Amino acid sequence: MTTLIKNGTVVNATGTAAADVLVDGETVAAVLAPGSTLLGVDLEASVDTVLDAAGKYVIPGGVDAHTHMEMPFGGTFASDTFETGTRAAAWGGTTTIVDFVVQYPDQRVMDQYHLWHEKADGNCAIDYGFHQILSDVQDDSLKAMDELIGEGVTSFKLFMAYKGVFLSDDGQILRAFQRGAENGAMMMMHAENGAMIDVLVQQALEAGHTTPYYHGMTRPWQAEEEATHRAIMIADLTGAPLYVVHVSAKQAVEQIAAARGRGRNVFGETCPQYLYLSLEEQLGARSEEWGDFEGAKWVCSTPLRARAEGHQEQLWQALRTNDLQMVSTDHCPFCMKEQKDLGRGDFSKIPNGIGSVEHRMDLLYQGVVDGRISLPRWVEIASTTPARMFGMYGRKGVIQPGADADIVVYDPSGHTSIGVGRTHHMAMDYSAWEGFEVDGHVDTVISRGKVVVDDGEYVGSAGDGRYVKRGLSQYLT
Amino acid sequence: MTTLIKNGTVVNATGTAAADVLVDGETVAAVLAPGSTLLGVDLEASVDTVLDAAGKYVIPGGVDAHTHMEMPFGGTFASDTFETGTRAAAWGGTTTIVDFVVQYPDQRVMDQYHLWHEKADGNCAIDYGFHQILSDVQDDSLKAMDELIGEGVTSFKLFMAYKGVFLSDDGQILRAFQRGAENGAMMMMHAENGAMIDVLVQQALEAGHTTPYYHGMTRPWQAEEEATHRAIMIADLTGAPLYVVHVSAKQAVEQIAAARGRGRNVFGETCPQYLYLSLEEQLGARSEEWGDFEGAKWVCSTPLRARAEGHQEQLWQALRTNDLQMVSTDHCPFCMKEQKDLGRGDFSKIPNGIGSVEHRMDLLYQGVVDGRISLPRWVEIASTTPARMFGMYGRKGVIQPGADADIVVYDPSGHTSIGVGRTHHMAMDYSAWEGFEVDGHVDTVISRGKVVVDDGEYVGSAGDGRYVKRGLSQYLT
Amino acid sequence: MTTLIKNGTVVNATGTAAADVLVDGETVAAVLAPGSTLLGVDLEASVDTVLDAAGKYVIPGGVDAHTHMEMPFGGTFASDTFETGTRAAAWGGTTTIVDFVVQYPDQRVMDQYHLWHEKADGNCAIDYGFHQILSDVQDDSLKAMDELIGEGVTSFKLFMAYKGVFLSDDGQILRAFQRGAENGAMMMMHAENGAMIDVLVQQALEAGHTTPYYHGMTRPWQAEEEATHRAIMIADLTGAPLYVVHVSAKQAVEQIAAARGRGRNVFGETCPQYLYLSLEEQLGARSEEWGDFEGAKWVCSTPLRARAEGHQEQLWQALRTNDLQMVSTDHCPFCMKEQKDLGRGDFSKIPNGIGSVEHRMDLLYQGVVDGRISLPRWVEIASTTPARMFGMYGRKGVIQPGADADIVVYDPSGHTSIGVGRTHHMAMDYSAWEGFEVDGHVDTVISRGKVVVDDGEYVGSAGDGRYVKRGLSQYLT
Amino acid sequence: MTTLIKNGTVVNATGTAAADVLVDGETVAAVLAPGSTLLGVDLEASVDTVLDAAGKYVIPGGVDAHTHMEMPFGGTFASDTFETGTRAAAWGGTTTIVDFVVQYPDQRVMDQYHLWHEKADGNCAIDYGFHQILSDVQDDSLKAMDELIGEGVTSFKLFMAYKGVFLSDDGQILRAFQRGAENGAMMMMHAENGAMIDVLVQQALEAGHTTPYYHGMTRPWQAEEEATHRAIMIADLTGAPLYVVHVSAKQAVEQIAAARGRGRNVFGETCPQYLYLSLEEQLGARSEEWGDFEGAKWVCSTPLRARAEGHQEQLWQALRTNDLQMVSTDHCPFCMKEQKDLGRGDFSKIPNGIGSVEHRMDLLYQGVVDGRISLPRWVEIASTTPARMFGMYGRKGVIQPGADADIVVYDPSGHTSIGVGRTHHMAMDYSAWEGFEVDGHVDTVISRGKVVVDDGEYVGSAGDGRYVKRGLSQYLT
Repeated sequence: MTTLIKNGTVVNATGTAAADVLVDGETVAAVLAPGSTLLGVDLEASVDTVLDAAGKYVIPGGVDAHTHMEMPFGGTFASDTFETGTRAAAWGGTTTIVDFVVQYPDQRVMDQYHLWHEKADGNCAIDYGFHQILSDVQDDSLKAMDELIGEGVTSFKLFMAYKGVFLSDDGQILRAFQRGAENGAMMMMHAENGAMIDVLVQQALEAGHTTPYYHGMTRPWQAEEEATHRAIMIADLTGAPLYVVHVSAKQAVEQIAAARGRGRNVFGETCPQYLYLSLEEQLGARSEEWGDFEGAKWVCSTPLRARAEGHQEQLWQALRTNDLQMVSTDHCPFCMKEQKDLGRGDFSKIPNGIGSVEHRMDLLYQGVVDGRISLPRWVEIASTTPARMFGMYGRKGVIQPGADADIVVYDPSGHTSIGVGRTHHMAMDYSAWEGFEVDGHVDTVISRGKVVVDDGEYVGSAGDGRYVKRGLSQYLT
Repeated sequence: MTTLIKNGTVVNATGTAAADVLVDGETVAAVLAPGSTLLGVDLEASVDTVLDAAGKYVIPGGVDAHTHMEMPFGGTFASDTFETGTRAAAWGGTTTIVDFVVQYPDQRVMDQYHLWHEKADGNCAIDYGFHQILSDVQDDSLKAMDELIGEGVTSFKLFMAYKGVFLSDDGQILRAFQRGAENGAMMMMHAENGAMIDVLVQQALEAGHTTPYYHGMTRPWQAEEEATHRAIMIADLTGAPLYVVHVSAKQAVEQIAAARGRGRNVFGETCPQYLYLSLEEQLGARSEEWGDFEGAKWVCSTPLRARAEGHQEQLWQALRTNDLQMVSTDHCPFCMKEQKDLGRGDFSKIPNGIGSVEHRMDLLYQGVVDGRISLPRWVEIASTTPARMFGMYGRKGVIQPGADADIVVYDPSGHTSIGVGRTHHMAMDYSAWEGFEVDGHVDTVISRGKVVVDDGEYVGSAGDGRYVKRGLSQYLT
Repeated sequence: MTTLIKNGTVVNATGTAAADVLVDGETVAAVLAPGSTLLGVDLEASVDTVLDAAGKYVIPGGVDAHTHMEMPFGGTFASDTFETGTRAAAWGGTTTIVDFVVQYPDQRVMDQYHLWHEKADGNCAIDYGFHQILSDVQDDSLKAMDELIGEGVTSFKLFMAYKGVFLSDDGQILRAFQRGAENGAMMMMHAENGAMIDVLVQQALEAGHTTPYYHGMTRPWQAEEEATHRAIMIADLTGAPLYVVHVSAKQAVEQIAAARGRGRNVFGETCPQYLYLSLEEQLGARSEEWGDFEGAKWVCSTPLRARAEGHQEQLWQALRTNDLQMVSTDHCPFCMKEQKDLGRGDFSKIPNGIGSVEHRMDLLYQGVVDGRISLPRWVEIASTTPARMFGMYGRKGVIQPGADADIVVYDPSGHTSIGVGRTHHMAMDYSAWEGFEVDGHVDTVISRGKVVVDDGEYVGSAGDGRYVKRGLSQYLT
Repeated sequence: MTTLIKNGTVVNATGTAAADVLVDGETVAAVLAPGSTLLGVDLEASVDTVLDAAGKYVIPGGVDAHTHMEMPFGGTFASDTFETGTRAAAWGGTTTIVDFVVQYPDQRVMDQYHLWHEKADGNCAIDYGFHQILSDVQDDSLKAMDELIGEGVTSFKLFMAYKGVFLSDDGQILRAFQRGAENGAMMMMHAENGAMIDVLVQQALEAGHTTPYYHGMTRPWQAEEEATHRAIMIADLTGAPLYVVHVSAKQAVEQIAAARGRGRNVFGETCPQYLYLSLEEQLGARSEEWGDFEGAKWVCSTPLRARAEGHQEQLWQALRTNDLQMVSTDHCPFCMKEQKDLGRGDFSKIPNGIGSVEHRMDLLYQGVVDGRISLPRWVEIASTTPARMFGMYGRKGVIQPGADADIVVYDPSGHTSIGVGRTHHMAMDYSAWEGFEVDGHVDTVISRGKVVVDDGEYVGSAGDGRYVKRGLSQYLT
């Protein structure tokens, strides 16, 4: 099966090229000067399919390095299964996710790793890799780290919050980072000071502050900045590379930037919600259906930050200056009914999470339209760097010969209206992005050579996606 | 004329690919998965030439954005003509230079621009562009800026030193930067406080300190840091992008990094001499032939810095952290005899400059071997970013369809011994790099599709190189 | 003549004491525990005068280290003579001024120094010292520096602005700083980049922007920050201590703070106008009499800064954190009629200056009332540090035995309404502070043992004040 | 009982005065111009005692705000009792200590507070106050905070290390800081990340690294910097003032300086051992008696730091720049025999502490002699600021009428040789300062009007010292 994508503008992390792309089977066979002949061969006539991308961008498929499909949390599960979630991702131009294997304190890491394969294998619309969560790190988990690297799981996430659920103390973190420094793994951190937050939450509830807005008010920027800095110091001491997930506070960005300025391998991702949404909007949110519990739609951790403090602007700037290197979604969807609803009357019981896996490429493209980032930077933060950061570059994150043919044809003259009743395909009964309009459109999505989304129609099938065995990070200095 | 470069490892700014490159005429026609057939066509059989790059790196040709061929200075001329200098560049894997048109206070900018074309056109071994120097900026020069952008000269260099020769005062700089902010030009700055230096030089000579070492001692880091900061503030006020040339002091790097952290379009280059050589070595230099005037070989401005102060290490780190974005040579060669010799007994009369255009790619590759930078970063700082910074990307700085076929086959198992009696082809009677050994070798150099260096033999001819009409910078955030 | 000031609260730079002060002749004889007996002696009965300070603060008289009495500028003279200006100072609780001897390029420093003595000697109400201005520094001026130190002029002010009038270039500054590093003088700097400003002024006038507001618009913070940093670097290179006058931009404060953090002897003063007034108010200023030329009342250099940018708040904070060490007035009064009026239709011709010598102590005390600074810090920034900074401590700036009896009784339950028609005694036809209300009042002012202001009445006479021969700075680390 | 201290140079925090001091009973009655008459009274003839201080400094007695007399730790007790320790302090020119009431997790705060009074009352040679240690903060402890403020205990120390002994988690710290923000207490912090350290200690012991040097190696600067920053963030969130004890790492200083630059009430003390001693010396320490266990003499926490990293120089600079505000001893003496010896073969069992209470004033004075700090700064960091910081100023820390007559006559032409066999009076069988020579000498020490040390003889008696009921901090901005 051969496909020629012709007449498009290929965008990569450093610039653009007017070029055709020849796909042969699952991989890219060639990137060619536009025109139908090569050494006398009529390419168009020789291939099985021709896809005309005139006026459109041809980009490497999006890589969303932070998702939580069907994640068990607080007695319920994230509402997207691997099937529904990866299908929604495909619709949105994302062709690879890296999901988190969850291990809770009473579980063995390797058991959970195998369990996650059972959940995902055969069900995914696009390719997927795994990070491993290590909760309450024990010796057995440290041993599993080495084993998992052989399995292509080369990144491990720890938590500085969620006592009794995910939390590891600083000694446990230190030991895990030491292991990471030895075996080359990327150490990922949920950087919030849980001990501080737990007190603030308790005090808020005691004071009768129970609405969703207090979720954000009890997770102040100081808790994020502090934990970010602490993780950086442990990384500094051990020599492990550090990747801070879902950075939302500008002060946390400053800590990451300072560490990078000292030459440290410290990285940070942010998410669309922190770039666009704010605590003030959560405060003002109310609806006929949900009253002021409406704000539960945007309960996520780290929380939305106050626009008056300038976090959103600083995050965009950090994406320009590479103080933050990439954007993931932290896709962790919960429905309002039966799920978010668990926290009515007690914000601390609201399942934490926002669903965005479908919208990340579009929302970031809007940043190009708005002049916030350049076109090549869009591809870099949404595809190339995620692939490099997590050891997939060459196969993912770039359109070059030999790479997996994960390709998106993106139409800058198209339009996308986001919301439940419109393009939304995630298994959620609401959208955190209701009403957002994007001046661009995902036209065609090719996953390993197969068209899975064609002009707005999903034409793939569960099981198209395969597990990606990742190597060590290719982004270290 | 078609050429297939097969079996090599193509290196670009974000990573590597096992890929073949098909050149058709002057440009790249395709980048292909390795193997001799494409859609049933036997490529090897179809092309005119096959070049086997097995075990070697295939990289976009080097772009040296800072050279001074046959530059008039202090009553003499830089010893390399456009012919000898570009030929030496080719030997060293550089396929594009951007040279500086010199305008002195009593000259008109456009006259000089045309004069430089006369010097270069028809004589160059590789492609060349021009920056324009504006000395003692006058109204007429400001008008010329707009005109020159139409000519493909989109960057303008000012000086904060060399009173009566190059110096513009801060008001003149401000006006030029205002113009740059309007027309999109990149403003380049020689950032040293000349007024301070002139006093120190005079005092040193009065104190009988006349040897070459005092060149460095009278240009202290404070003079560079100060001027760098001043240029940044003028850029800040006007909104013009700023590119600081030949950064050598770590404190100047800090100023650039701080401005970048604030989101400003401020950039910096360093040069191989600042990465590898030091003031201490200049102090200790003596030879039978030259005595302690031996140190004149390394008289350049900005000067070499003290290794004890850690500048060299900080510059390498800045290249890793992207606080500095690229490396040029500031190639400005003068022979010891009759040229440098003019300053015997008075260091201030030594023509300023070091010749490195031939060695930049090798010297930076050694940084990869030594673990200081990664392989993709080598290509980025030596080719991709220079092309982006100065509006040539797409044609230069990348191997992709449609790009000029400026390609170097670099052998990581080869070896290069640098020095006058060995590989050196610059028109100099000494080498600032005598005795440097590099664990790599430029095997083949292709300039717009034509092999100009073949296994150590120069096989091109004067006039192969053509003028590159540049666009505006493609590196702005 | 002996005086006992009893029952007051003596305030010094580190705290307060309930103590009586015994003045004998011109100096403080003792500070004593409150109560009328000492070793059996009835003090009250033994002294000539008893002054009851119950409920009031007893503080060392204010030291205003930056005034320009009858200064020649732009064809006119500052409107306060030494007589009127020092009398106004006394009214406001200031008992020492340090005024600037002005030397213009065509004048000899020592001539001017002697001329200034002629102006001041016999005319002053309070003690006075001199700083020396060095314009367009020449060899002769450098020699004068050493001589002047012997005369008690131990601080020298240079300018980075006012070309042809005051400006010295960086080489001249460097040489003067070298001399200062050798002879221990404090180098003072008017830190604004005049070359930048001159262009902006010319451009504004060409664009028809002639109102007073454009004075501030053409002296942007970048011009101040730049020059401040440049002066710091020259100080760094030479080792001279640096004192930056009239700091108004928060970015200039950052530069000073950074230098201090590196352990450098770099200091900064601000003035009441920068703490309280803003560019926005100047923009909005208009009156029946003056129309939008009303804004001329606040034309001073450095200019008022935009409140929206937060300069005023940052200056107060810098006073708390000691990033700025003291507050002077830069008292340089010009009347609206015939003086400021010279610049109607061309803001660049408005004489620069604001008169505040009478109000500094009150305005800063209001900072105590408003919770911006502590009571001891008030005394420190207004009296103790100025005395230490400029080599007068022990005689001035402190109430201790042997010190000159320069003492102010300040009533925290009094009130002061500022303005022309009210308490104002400066030779000005307007007040820059019209309408300001202060929750405190200068009750009694004693200058070297003599009461010169008694309950709002001036009871001294011209010539009470004597020249203060100053030593080297006592504030260096 | 009246005493006249005549002819001396009184030194305070801002400068010096030639002045006599009259003591009447327990307090200072007057500070007077030198000379024996005042208003006709012959003072010398009128007082009971005359003390001639010609050629000497007359300073407020030292305030050592960090001591641990007879502290229970690790199954033993600090070797100095309140009696021996305060006597040694007096010998060294310290007239006030603030000691720590220890509360362990199973003890009630108020019980311990009363117990400490039992230990100290009637036994001390000089005045003493108490800080309260809160271990594993519980509700009951929070309540005790308010009560203790009424008792004159206005500062509370928490620990981020020593799990199971002193450690509070971040939630507990947060709650205590909230209380401090409300009631105005100063929150003190032992800032080391105990969780990190515990792992490193365990790993070192497992690796067979058991000698005292590994105490320092397992408490890296990252652990101190991290905890310092964390404490600052909790202070930032709550608004409580923060005082970081025994700062030894330059990176921790940077954190404190940064917080202060942001206007926060964050303070830091260092100790003589961190200014003078180093990890390298501990590494090299060996003796006939103790072999390489000799290094146990310098086991303290935070640990000595590597001189090669420049900590010592940076701490001195921080004292000059006021990034650190004062110097205490953390006096916590243990004998080598039977005490330090407990840790032979396992450094983690060595009781932590160094004895310096006797030497602080001398060691800091040597900093004056060596040109590191000025004479007034000596008095400020050793007496005035400690008194202000902890609510004793007015009574302590200054020589002024009404103040406690705690006065030291210090002889700059005297000499002090430190060590066990010489002047040492602490209850220790070794000296951490053996062999240190100081170019100055404590001649006379007066505590509340009574001479307790007279020319090297202790002439006081146990119980001279009284409890100081402290107020809230007087050092807040």
